[in-house]
Amino acid sequence: MLLNCDLGESFGAWTMGMDEHVMPFIDQANIACGFHAGDPVTMHKTVRLALEHGVALGAHPSYPDLQGFGRRSMTLHPEEITALVSYQVGALSHIAASEGGELSYVKPHGALYNDMMRSAAILDAVLNAISRSPHPLALMAMATADNRNLRAACERHNVELLLEAFADRAYDCQGFIVPRSTPGAVHKDDTVIIAQARNLASGSPIQTIDGQPLRLEADTLCVHGDNADSVAAVRAIRDALKELH
Amino acid sequence: MLLNCDLGESFGAWTMGMDEHVMPFIDQANIACGFHAGDPVTMHKTVRLALEHGVALGAHPSYPDLQGFGRRSMTLHPEEITALVSYQVGALSHIAASEGGELSYVKPHGALYNDMMRSAAILDAVLNAISRSPHPLALMAMATADNRNLRAACERHNVELLLEAFADRAYDCQGFIVPRSTPGAVHKDDTVIIAQARNLASGSPIQTIDGQPLRLEADTLCVHGDNADSVAAVRAIRDALKELH
Amino acid sequence: MLLNCDLGESFGAWTMGMDEHVMPFIDQANIACGFHAGDPVTMHKTVRLALEHGVALGAHPSYPDLQGFGRRSMTLHPEEITALVSYQVGALSHIAASEGGELSYVKPHGALYNDMMRSAAILDAVLNAISRSPHPLALMAMATADNRNLRAACERHNVELLLEAFADRAYDCQGFIVPRSTPGAVHKDDTVIIAQARNLASGSPIQTIDGQPLRLEADTLCVHGDNADSVAAVRAIRDALKELH
Amino acid sequence: MLLNCDLGESFGAWTMGMDEHVMPFIDQANIACGFHAGDPVTMHKTVRLALEHGVALGAHPSYPDLQGFGRRSMTLHPEEITALVSYQVGALSHIAASEGGELSYVKPHGALYNDMMRSAAILDAVLNAISRSPHPLALMAMATADNRNLRAACERHNVELLLEAFADRAYDCQGFIVPRSTPGAVHKDDTVIIAQARNLASGSPIQTIDGQPLRLEADTLCVHGDNADSVAAVRAIRDALKELH
Repeated sequence: MLLNCDLGESFGAWTMGMDEHVMPFIDQANIACGFHAGDPVTMHKTVRLALEHGVALGAHPSYPDLQGFGRRSMTLHPEEITALVSYQVGALSHIAASEGGELSYVKPHGALYNDMMRSAAILDAVLNAISRSPHPLALMAMATADNRNLRAACERHNVELLLEAFADRAYDCQGFIVPRSTPGAVHKDDTVIIAQARNLASGSPIQTIDGQPLRLEADTLCVHGDNADSVAAVRAIRDALKELH
Repeated sequence: MLLNCDLGESFGAWTMGMDEHVMPFIDQANIACGFHAGDPVTMHKTVRLALEHGVALGAHPSYPDLQGFGRRSMTLHPEEITALVSYQVGALSHIAASEGGELSYVKPHGALYNDMMRSAAILDAVLNAISRSPHPLALMAMATADNRNLRAACERHNVELLLEAFADRAYDCQGFIVPRSTPGAVHKDDTVIIAQARNLASGSPIQTIDGQPLRLEADTLCVHGDNADSVAAVRAIRDALKELH
Repeated sequence: MLLNCDLGESFGAWTMGMDEHVMPFIDQANIACGFHAGDPVTMHKTVRLALEHGVALGAHPSYPDLQGFGRRSMTLHPEEITALVSYQVGALSHIAASEGGELSYVKPHGALYNDMMRSAAILDAVLNAISRSPHPLALMAMATADNRNLRAACERHNVELLLEAFADRAYDCQGFIVPRSTPGAVHKDDTVIIAQARNLASGSPIQTIDGQPLRLEADTLCVHGDNADSVAAVRAIRDALKELH
Repeated sequence: MLLNCDLGESFGAWTMGMDEHVMPFIDQANIACGFHAGDPVTMHKTVRLALEHGVALGAHPSYPDLQGFGRRSMTLHPEEITALVSYQVGALSHIAASEGGELSYVKPHGALYNDMMRSAAILDAVLNAISRSPHPLALMAMATADNRNLRAACERHNVELLLEAFADRAYDCQGFIVPRSTPGAVHKDDTVIIAQARNLASGSPIQTIDGQPLRLEADTLCVHGDNADSVAAVRAIRDALKELH
């Protein structure tokens, strides 16, 4: 079970995230590509930091919406989505290459990620961009109780699928994350978070918000480096996962 | 002597240039990369059009200035220039690859081009980006009477230099283009344009605005596809160059 | 019956619309405010042109989406919509005042206009911005067969309502415009357009796409200045309306 | 002697500055207008916060450069500068009015501020925008040893001039701020800062970086609310100024 984290989300004079502090404890860096965060200089720095720590590089493309941090859905034509994913993946890919690294996967950001999970047409538009990359890139997407459609779409495009799960979020019976607006949606207690991480990593069922068992197939856990607390949680998850082996 | 042209300068709902009409007559397409013009969908379309006509693909990166079309100088740090050139070259490079093509050169746009010709530090920042590309890219820059510094900088970075000249612009004795504000700066008469093109192509001297002979070493002529007149001029230049062989 | 037209939709180096040609024939100019089109210099020019022709000034605010020309819906929080309408209305209002004019109404643009017609919360967010303006501004919105909700919302905010109709678009029985994707959605024949304009102006019913009579209450007709044909249509509509008096 | 501070410099998901903490201790809020920082929602919030504390509202317009936080000079045409100042002042002015407040001055931001202090043409372009505002606005600019040109330009445009000085920056003999790159340019010691504030407020000479006495005519001191230290310095300056009366 790997750990992935959204990084490189500073922009110009604005700083976001504790990238230096969380990078030593993760395996995969989802790097912002300029459309919701991450100017070109920040992208270079983030790539260098990831390479220093042997962390895999992933593109984290978004709708074009700096003001909304890519969290606002936009009704784009599939051709527009394919083109903007290609554009952002290309920009980061070239910056990675110029620093001696190589991208290995793409994880859409924010509203684009959510829209891709809901719409076959948008998933297809994203996969169109990924599958036409000159070197192979995986798609990182959300594990749910039933990943068959997702898996089939990736197979059609000959794109590897990386499934991610969340240790700090409550799930419903279909294996979807409970919306943040629902009470209990976000686990605050570290023992709950670590227990969920352990179960996800060992293939054991986790408990849904309704108390039902849920088995999720996952390759990677999404962790957060926003502040000192979330970095501490990442260290704790990392330690807990080590003990599993 | 090749012909190069700035293309792909539409943006979203706005159209600029007669790309379809001029593409059949040129050899090298300088394609906008989103910072002064050229959204991701337009970039895909322009790449496809160039590939259909066997036209070489070049990146045309700019300062980040849609409102000013990249024509307004900005005092950026060299590190910022390197990063934004890498970003834009990468975006176009990936789009080119996804359409089955490959970039072969970079020609900075507008104010960035002019600033690069005036400042060794900015030229160096641009070459830093180009030289770290995973596959070799040439730099297209302006031929003047003395290209030694330009050539030396390219050699230091191990980057091929493509020198471009203008058939429709008046030159001064140093081989610099006369600013548009000066009377006589832009040739309007097709016979003058074609004569200058012929001389540049055959290695003969052209006449400066002061009536002096000027010999310019050039690999490519910059032509324009803005309107029906300029496209007609490109066809006439193309025909004149064919007769030289 | 007045004529309104979207204007000032150029941006930087890109030109759109034949503003100079259509301005003499209209009564109300819906002026882009920088979020989908219309940079600050263009806004000044458009205001001056409207004032020269005695045309009323309206703000044409949009979602922040230059790349999509404001035609792509975005899921914004109502507070964000109120704030961006205030921002754009304020920018144009100040430019108008600095040219000796004054705004009289607001007509949301593109996707924001459509979303406002569909969602009471978005309409409310727009009206929140308009009603808090230091001087009174009307809202221009689409006339349908039943304008009661629209009218009630405007009354609640103490905002005057201007209803607009279209001479060149087919309507359905509810008085909604038929989507462009449907055959017959856009009238191409000038005699049909002028007949519809005449009926709308005189309060006579128009014919829906299904051949039913439809009576629309409208204060203003939306006309277009995109090209020579649409400008000619505006002149013909203007002439037809004059004859009615 | 008043205290002014740059505020409202958050943008979307990014936070900058401790606005709530510094607002109680200042007299004038220079509020970002969206071109270097400050989205429409942030502008509303900042205006409300200033009004709650009885702080005067100033517009802080910038070159259009979010990525560079308005700190990078851009070679704009004077007409472009006038238009973008009008645009930003208008946007903030309308938001202020919608919250029940009114702008009283304009202080250009970053590179635009510096360029205005160096170039008569740019100062003129800024004053053109300010003087054409529908209600009177002052210009806040930098006090130097000789303010005659600045004062004359403001008088020509019938615009009130507010001169600002810095308590935490070293000055040279001409009364210009020593560039940050020079050792000793920024005072770190609170006793030095407070002494300089006291001297500026009481009309006594301050000591230049070369140990010479310098008398600066100033209406307002520029203070900073970036972090806990700078907020503490503002409180100390405020206390010191109170003792003067």
